[in-house]
Amino acid sequence: MLSKIESLVRELKEQNLLLPIWFEGGRVVALDQTRLPFEEVHLNLATVEEVAAAIREMRVRGSGAIALAGAWGLWMEAASGTGSPAGIERARLLLQETRPTAVSLRKTLDEIAGGLSDCPAVEIAETVGNRVMAVVRRHLAFERAIGSSGAGLIQDGATVLTHCHSGALAGAGYGGRALSPIRAAVEQGKAVRVIACETRPYLQGSRITAWELLKLGVPVTLITDGMSGLVLKEGMADLVIVGSDRVAANGDLANKVGTYLHALAARESGVPFYSAASSHTIDLAAASGQEIEIELRDPAEVLTFQGKDIAPPGVQGLYPAFDITPAALIAGFITERGLIRPPYRENLARIVDG
Amino acid sequence: MLSKIESLVRELKEQNLLLPIWFEGGRVVALDQTRLPFEEVHLNLATVEEVAAAIREMRVRGSGAIALAGAWGLWMEAASGTGSPAGIERARLLLQETRPTAVSLRKTLDEIAGGLSDCPAVEIAETVGNRVMAVVRRHLAFERAIGSSGAGLIQDGATVLTHCHSGALAGAGYGGRALSPIRAAVEQGKAVRVIACETRPYLQGSRITAWELLKLGVPVTLITDGMSGLVLKEGMADLVIVGSDRVAANGDLANKVGTYLHALAARESGVPFYSAASSHTIDLAAASGQEIEIELRDPAEVLTFQGKDIAPPGVQGLYPAFDITPAALIAGFITERGLIRPPYRENLARIVDG
Repeated sequence: MLSKIESLVRELKEQNLLLPIWFEGGRVVALDQTRLPFEEVHLNLATVEEVAAAIREMRVRGSGAIALAGAWGLWMEAASGTGSPAGIERARLLLQETRPTAVSLRKTLDEIAGGLSDCPAVEIAETVGNRVMAVVRRHLAFERAIGSSGAGLIQDGATVLTHCHSGALAGAGYGGRALSPIRAAVEQGKAVRVIACETRPYLQGSRITAWELLKLGVPVTLITDGMSGLVLKEGMADLVIVGSDRVAANGDLANKVGTYLHALAARESGVPFYSAASSHTIDLAAASGQEIEIELRDPAEVLTFQGKDIAPPGVQGLYPAFDITPAALIAGFITERGLIRPPYRENLARIVDG
Repeated sequence: MLSKIESLVRELKEQNLLLPIWFEGGRVVALDQTRLPFEEVHLNLATVEEVAAAIREMRVRGSGAIALAGAWGLWMEAASGTGSPAGIERARLLLQETRPTAVSLRKTLDEIAGGLSDCPAVEIAETVGNRVMAVVRRHLAFERAIGSSGAGLIQDGATVLTHCHSGALAGAGYGGRALSPIRAAVEQGKAVRVIACETRPYLQGSRITAWELLKLGVPVTLITDGMSGLVLKEGMADLVIVGSDRVAANGDLANKVGTYLHALAARESGVPFYSAASSHTIDLAAASGQEIEIELRDPAEVLTFQGKDIAPPGVQGLYPAFDITPAALIAGFITERGLIRPPYRENLARIVDG
């Protein structure tokens, strides 16, 4: 089994991917995303506890990447001398508790660790290993499929405006959600430029999106989040592509706070606005965006910059993690099952597994 | 003359103003705005060269405050033993060159230094002193008038969303443009809260607006520039008041970049959006916002955060200093000559001095 895993990892490393996490030399290896964009530090994680800590500390981040971190963590546990159903169950719980609201992580852990109590001890490592390989291959195929669905929207010479980071390092290494169509367009030989919004307070745009696109050879211009209105009005971008945290049944989009303003500005300037989404993030149980609760994060993030105070004592901060972009502002969802156009209620329901 | 100046300054200091600049003990004294919000450092500027440097280095900033810095600089020159028409002309040129595009600074310098060659030497200090006092009093009366024009828009218990800094320290010490209506409402006994956008890249919102409002006892909540859409949609603000860099004849508004997005979001959520403007910033020569050139500033500001790199080498930055908010998004202009409602072409022209 180990040699099959090693062979998969070699294969991945030959594909010019930007891998956020993999398995090598008996360790889970993760690119420390908190050190980007100035240092490329790889963490060698020797235990499930260390993998869990890397997720908790945001060294591995993004829904796809943390799901894979969970997968590789379970594989390391299964491959260790102590690999047992009980040990794997402990590892599953430990990994899941790192980000309790991360749906993709939970589903992936359940898929890999499920039903192992009936599994003969000698077959556990092989069973887990096969499941992990299937997950990794599926995630990559998924990103390539999003790329294919969206590449046609990007003309040769086009400029794409994006917000936050929804790319390879948040996913399996191809281009995540929002950056997969860009990568696919580049692979088709098109010249593509990107305008990246810095995405305060955490600066995913300047720190990670910009780094990733430069790695792919895509020219990037960075703007502050308040500049998209002018940029779109001046015709500096041909389309907008953002990721998606969650999509309601009617097509309302929950995504990183700031997205809604870019969508308003895009409509005002006649620039099409797309969300790269996965069928898994479409939540038919939420009839509209009004039913999606806005997570409030630590307001200290707004009052500080990389740990340094930027506001006077006594001021309050507010940090809603995402906002809701109404479906009417969205030209289409770029999914692994094709480009979904309105009417969304019917067309989104069609691609969600019953 | 000196005693009249000293008496004016005493009077100002008794009025609970937030003075950005004044004259005391033979020096021009300026609050160093680059050190806010953590340190209140006052600079004692002993020469016109030092006043010019303080403007150039943004220690004094905001159109009103730098006009007053120019005025006090000319007074210091006139009051010195060497005060002569030639010396004052040299000082005027030196001060004007600090910010060549600052219209209010240029007009103020011209007003104070104009026609002095015909003035007997013994009368120069008195002439300049009287002109400077008139300018200072006029600026303060002007801010109080903006306050009166706008206070009625703010109900008891209201929350105002603002962008950038357009307050006392950018003006003469009352509340500048955007914060004067808030100050006037507070002086009427109303409870007012403010949501301040941090205003990247220079963070005038977190550093200066928040500091100033806390000084006045107004509770402030800070958000990043991308959060206004959600905040307005959730009904967290009752109105928006921003300043104005320039207003075209048709009511299109040039203001700090990011303003346009807040205006789009305000319209979408049915929240009235106001600009606090001065009749002097209304430019009838610009028929619409399309005729206002967008100043591009140093892109390094976007690639750094308080001097620290935040983006990988190789990324470009773009820093348009302001954007254009179409007149159709603006519920009114709060001016020293009253609240101006549409139709703007007629109503703005009426308050501009022919």
